[in-house]
Amino acid sequence: MRTEEILTLERLAERIGARMVGPSDCGAEEVSGVSTIERAGPDQVCYYGNPRYRSALEGTRALAVITDEEGLRTSARALLVVESAYPAFRRALMLFAPDRSSGFEDHRASTAAVHDSAVVDVSATVGHHAVIDRDCSIGAGTIIGPGCCLGPGVSVGRDCILESRVSLEPGTRLGDRVLVHSGAVIGSDGFGFAFEDGIPRKVPQNGGVIVEDDAEIGANCTIDRGTVGDTVVGAHSKLDNLVHLAHNVKLGRACMLAAQVGIAGSTRVGDGVFFGGQAGLMGHIRIGAGAVIGAQAGVTKDVRKGTTVSGYPARPH
Amino acid sequence: MRTEEILTLERLAERIGARMVGPSDCGAEEVSGVSTIERAGPDQVCYYGNPRYRSALEGTRALAVITDEEGLRTSARALLVVESAYPAFRRALMLFAPDRSSGFEDHRASTAAVHDSAVVDVSATVGHHAVIDRDCSIGAGTIIGPGCCLGPGVSVGRDCILESRVSLEPGTRLGDRVLVHSGAVIGSDGFGFAFEDGIPRKVPQNGGVIVEDDAEIGANCTIDRGTVGDTVVGAHSKLDNLVHLAHNVKLGRACMLAAQVGIAGSTRVGDGVFFGGQAGLMGHIRIGAGAVIGAQAGVTKDVRKGTTVSGYPARPH
Amino acid sequence: MRTEEILTLERLAERIGARMVGPSDCGAEEVSGVSTIERAGPDQVCYYGNPRYRSALEGTRALAVITDEEGLRTSARALLVVESAYPAFRRALMLFAPDRSSGFEDHRASTAAVHDSAVVDVSATVGHHAVIDRDCSIGAGTIIGPGCCLGPGVSVGRDCILESRVSLEPGTRLGDRVLVHSGAVIGSDGFGFAFEDGIPRKVPQNGGVIVEDDAEIGANCTIDRGTVGDTVVGAHSKLDNLVHLAHNVKLGRACMLAAQVGIAGSTRVGDGVFFGGQAGLMGHIRIGAGAVIGAQAGVTKDVRKGTTVSGYPARPH
Repeated sequence: MRTEEILTLERLAERIGARMVGPSDCGAEEVSGVSTIERAGPDQVCYYGNPRYRSALEGTRALAVITDEEGLRTSARALLVVESAYPAFRRALMLFAPDRSSGFEDHRASTAAVHDSAVVDVSATVGHHAVIDRDCSIGAGTIIGPGCCLGPGVSVGRDCILESRVSLEPGTRLGDRVLVHSGAVIGSDGFGFAFEDGIPRKVPQNGGVIVEDDAEIGANCTIDRGTVGDTVVGAHSKLDNLVHLAHNVKLGRACMLAAQVGIAGSTRVGDGVFFGGQAGLMGHIRIGAGAVIGAQAGVTKDVRKGTTVSGYPARPH
Repeated sequence: MRTEEILTLERLAERIGARMVGPSDCGAEEVSGVSTIERAGPDQVCYYGNPRYRSALEGTRALAVITDEEGLRTSARALLVVESAYPAFRRALMLFAPDRSSGFEDHRASTAAVHDSAVVDVSATVGHHAVIDRDCSIGAGTIIGPGCCLGPGVSVGRDCILESRVSLEPGTRLGDRVLVHSGAVIGSDGFGFAFEDGIPRKVPQNGGVIVEDDAEIGANCTIDRGTVGDTVVGAHSKLDNLVHLAHNVKLGRACMLAAQVGIAGSTRVGDGVFFGGQAGLMGHIRIGAGAVIGAQAGVTKDVRKGTTVSGYPARPH
Repeated sequence: MRTEEILTLERLAERIGARMVGPSDCGAEEVSGVSTIERAGPDQVCYYGNPRYRSALEGTRALAVITDEEGLRTSARALLVVESAYPAFRRALMLFAPDRSSGFEDHRASTAAVHDSAVVDVSATVGHHAVIDRDCSIGAGTIIGPGCCLGPGVSVGRDCILESRVSLEPGTRLGDRVLVHSGAVIGSDGFGFAFEDGIPRKVPQNGGVIVEDDAEIGANCTIDRGTVGDTVVGAHSKLDNLVHLAHNVKLGRACMLAAQVGIAGSTRVGDGVFFGGQAGLMGHIRIGAGAVIGAQAGVTKDVRKGTTVSGYPARPH
């Protein structure tokens, strides 16, 4: 995504779909990058989207501000006015994304341990000290980072990225374009025990985990495999860091889970549900599509679609 | 545990200690596996143990249902009636557990770094890229997964399993048949600092961690070593994922800790205590045997044995 | 720090700056180590600093007790009286710290994968299976533990310690004497998405993370890099295990964060702030210097300096 071209403010406006408002000579200024309102220099642009930063805008040194408010008061020389500011900010960041690609050149690192029966697409990359066990399948364009461990029979689709030290346990299947951050564990045993004579005896966890296309799993998350059947993360769902999904949880499409959320076993979550950080859900409940679960909420029963809940026990807001 | 024999429903009933209730010709049907009430096919059995799924039972395609209710209404062709349904379900799952063993055949992977002074039993398995430092001791039948790091002087008993990327820091001793899931860190420094001139200065953590026989530690858990003396996880205690135990915590036998529980330093927990997810305990308190700590509870003082507490600050229920 | 000399009680008192109170013949007794009040033997010293252990003091077998109370009632033979007991306890622990150094002797393990362009000081140590990508820089005396993964361009100062399996992602810069515990992930992508047509689209996270001198990061913590600009952990700040810092969080100096704390994006924390375990902070707020955030508190708005808050939503105490 990184551009090699020189971007003037006018050209940047065009690339992010914005209209420049300000003195016309600004348009020829060269833009060196994107920064914050407070720290931007006179050759950088910044983004305004939260009224908390309104006063900071009046002192910014930025060349221009990406905003959806035409009349915004600011010391910046120009505005880049768009209908939706955050997506435009995203496009600007893509234009200036630093090159963070690995310097190791081998497609398959010499130190990786790949079982003979594993099928790794010739265009996939396997990092140093990665371990890929029997019968794994790795799709085209996928990057397996250093230190990742893929257990027997794991499948990973096309154009996925596993950052460093990801564990995919047996029974795990990732779709295409899935991004998994460092330290995440997908497919660990569900937490199931049957008491016999006062002693908890392990219940085998025979199922798996399906992570659908375009999902993202944060650093050090844990997703357990199903007891029977699969734990599912729906397409386009995004998990922040340190999130826990128990066995047989089903997440719908495009759910957003902030950090440290935990969901107990067999709970089903509809499409497009938002979770604030540290929220916790009981097992065997259903969360309707479009619901919003407040930060630190403790959800003990079903939530209707489109409802916002918070507190413990969580109640409609 | 995986069976190679063909299991008819009659034979399955016998193996899990159930009485078959239904048309007698069912007994000769071959069972292909265990599934959920909703997804079971006509050659599979399922388990019923939660009234939330009662209506689903009436539409199930399963051949038979494992249950402790003789008169259960269901579209399944037969019931497998037992006194305790969950343990019977467990036995059925054991019979159909998939083979998830590694395909790497060496008992000691060529890429493992094992210090000359470490004593690794000849029947133990060491995975790829594992690191075993000086003076470690690994018992018979134990499996050290890929990418695990064992610091100096760590001891691991017999028939333990360390999944991938487990860290056991110096001072850690595991008993027999301990199961540690991927990414867990056992024996990290306790969080101790003495302020001098307004600066927190590190207090050395000279102790260790003892994990007793048959305990299980979830993925990405963290268990700190004692300042002096040991942090202890009692026999048969089970920790779900992302649980934190601080220095010098003592857990009794057969405690069950759901995901994301945190226990502060020097707190002592009796036998058989249950913790709901995300519960937090202050340091230096005592929890009596058989207590139940509700999900997200914040426990600030001692809890008597057998008491159920919840909320913040946690109160008897 | 470990002493090889024989320490008599008198000599120990001198080394930790204490005055011995008790029968004078005690001073010649040899001290074998430090233990707890309950477990100390007659050749060990213990530390008293919490009134919960007052009754235990009356039955201790310890030779002497480190304390700031001259008239303490105890069965120990002597007191080691100091002005501040915990710092003195710290000094005693330093004198008896066990040797936990690695037995692997190579400064750079033969199995480490270090890119040609990385600059690793000749006095630094690189553990087995560590991966150090292009353009990294590692300072003098720093120890990179086994299985650590350092992405392109990461810099680590002097005398740092990375325990096992730490990931430092691109854009991460550590100062001097930083200690990072096993499994921590620093510099993972911030959690930023712009919705377009109902689909969350990834916002590039172009910034980095700065961890200043003498900071400590606990096991399995996650610290995300800034969207633009840096996430910052101030000098001497200490994070316990499983703490999450989102993108662009700024922590001041000497902040103390107990386990499982989570701080959302762009929140700014002054110097010397204390966080109890499992506390959560909203994004874009400010916490004044010296504030105290109670365990499990949910902080939704700014907190003035020096204020103690608790509960959800957090209020002054």
